[in-house]
Amino acid sequence: MKLIHTASEMRAWSLARKAAGQTVGFVPTMGALHEGHASLMRAARARDDAAVLSVFVNPTQFGPEEDYDRYPRTWEADQAMAVDIGMDAIYVPDAREMYPEGYATYVMVEGVSSGLCSRTRPHFFRGVATVVTKLLNAVLPDRAYFGQKDGQQCAVIRRMARDLDMGVEIVEMPTVREPDGLAMSSRNKYLSAEERKRALCLSRSLFAARARLDAGERDGAALLDLVREGMAGVTIDYVELVDADSMCPVDRVRGRVMLAVAALVGNARLIDNIMFTPPECAG
Amino acid sequence: MKLIHTASEMRAWSLARKAAGQTVGFVPTMGALHEGHASLMRAARARDDAAVLSVFVNPTQFGPEEDYDRYPRTWEADQAMAVDIGMDAIYVPDAREMYPEGYATYVMVEGVSSGLCSRTRPHFFRGVATVVTKLLNAVLPDRAYFGQKDGQQCAVIRRMARDLDMGVEIVEMPTVREPDGLAMSSRNKYLSAEERKRALCLSRSLFAARARLDAGERDGAALLDLVREGMAGVTIDYVELVDADSMCPVDRVRGRVMLAVAALVGNARLIDNIMFTPPECAG
Repeated sequence: MKLIHTASEMRAWSLARKAAGQTVGFVPTMGALHEGHASLMRAARARDDAAVLSVFVNPTQFGPEEDYDRYPRTWEADQAMAVDIGMDAIYVPDAREMYPEGYATYVMVEGVSSGLCSRTRPHFFRGVATVVTKLLNAVLPDRAYFGQKDGQQCAVIRRMARDLDMGVEIVEMPTVREPDGLAMSSRNKYLSAEERKRALCLSRSLFAARARLDAGERDGAALLDLVREGMAGVTIDYVELVDADSMCPVDRVRGRVMLAVAALVGNARLIDNIMFTPPECAG
Repeated sequence: MKLIHTASEMRAWSLARKAAGQTVGFVPTMGALHEGHASLMRAARARDDAAVLSVFVNPTQFGPEEDYDRYPRTWEADQAMAVDIGMDAIYVPDAREMYPEGYATYVMVEGVSSGLCSRTRPHFFRGVATVVTKLLNAVLPDRAYFGQKDGQQCAVIRRMARDLDMGVEIVEMPTVREPDGLAMSSRNKYLSAEERKRALCLSRSLFAARARLDAGERDGAALLDLVREGMAGVTIDYVELVDADSMCPVDRVRGRVMLAVAALVGNARLIDNIMFTPPECAG
């Protein structure tokens, strides 16, 4: 497995693969890899001829009061997981290479970046869109794999890739969960045993809402009330029902929707969501 | 010569050239081609194995009161010039393909986009940076060629290409002028015979300033006064002395600078500039 540290070397590596008629699959991450990331890497490994992981804790998507400094870094274990899955290369740029002095360029995705996580993290999606643009420009993948847990991020990146003619297919993979339902997240490491138990209310509330959706509930307020009640033990940031493409709030389930939650549990800000397409709208 | 209308077809064409070991040179334009564009195409033709022209009048870089609708369109002549120079392909996307319903993504370059043209054209560089990103993503060139006449635009695109790891060399070619000194511009078509004469004061004033620079003048105010006096017959938008990389105003010539002017002559907004590196700072 090849370790690559610069954008120009990464691009040359990918262009050589493409020149040989291979497709390139790409899994961009901030490291601290868990089974969710593993599922993305396995998908890239299975579907593409060449599979690239990137590990970069991107400073521009953290606010000044956020957890950039203490974000978990587990480089040895990350590398071992990538080797184990059979990735062909890891792109590991350093922050000075990514944001040199005088850096001035940002990618903004309007609309879909509004609401939800952007209310408490106003620069988050600008940071994500910008770093993903840089990574895609270096790796030039045919497909890039993202986890559905970061549902708004997926919507932002899909919109951006299409708008900017990036020539990449954005593949959204299902959220991977612990056996008890908690969505896998690098930030779960922040939770004490007691907080870990309380954090379960996010997924449990969403599963309860899914049961109601399966039973035919289409009223947004009823679903949101149900989820909010289930999350009484944590500090809710938001509970929202939005259109799955535009991320605009909806008050009834008429097409594919995302029911999304964010909450503070101890020091950890956790997010989770479910997607639902009413059978009457499917196909 | 191949005509290409979609980003995916353009990208496939370029990737095939690169897979064959060829370099791709790219000249993005809004059409209404003149000798300035021809010099860019000849440079691409001479230096790169495959040479691509794009013709697209980009709506997002025009303000609501500006000349998008009346901007000259001379498609037959443009195509003939490209054939004559021996370009390999013309990329001609249409506006619906470039900005479909729901389009939401913009590229912003801070700092270097401020001042000068952005004061009267606040969304201009956002529109330019965004469309050039889209075109570069479709063409994936090794080199892209721009004219020095659009000096601030060149600085914005250089910064953007470097910041976003676009893997393209931005080549800035000298301004091409009419025999009497007027900088070539598609907008010169707007000038009446009388306005055409008055428009000469832009280049003449800049040449007078260059003579003073060559004679050792380093004081910004003296240079600006000289140029402003020379432009008494037209409506000045700005006359500025800026650092050639950052586009920040300077009051003395200490490194490479751009002396830039913009003015309204009749209905035409014209720009021009000279670059100067003091011999004591060169090399």
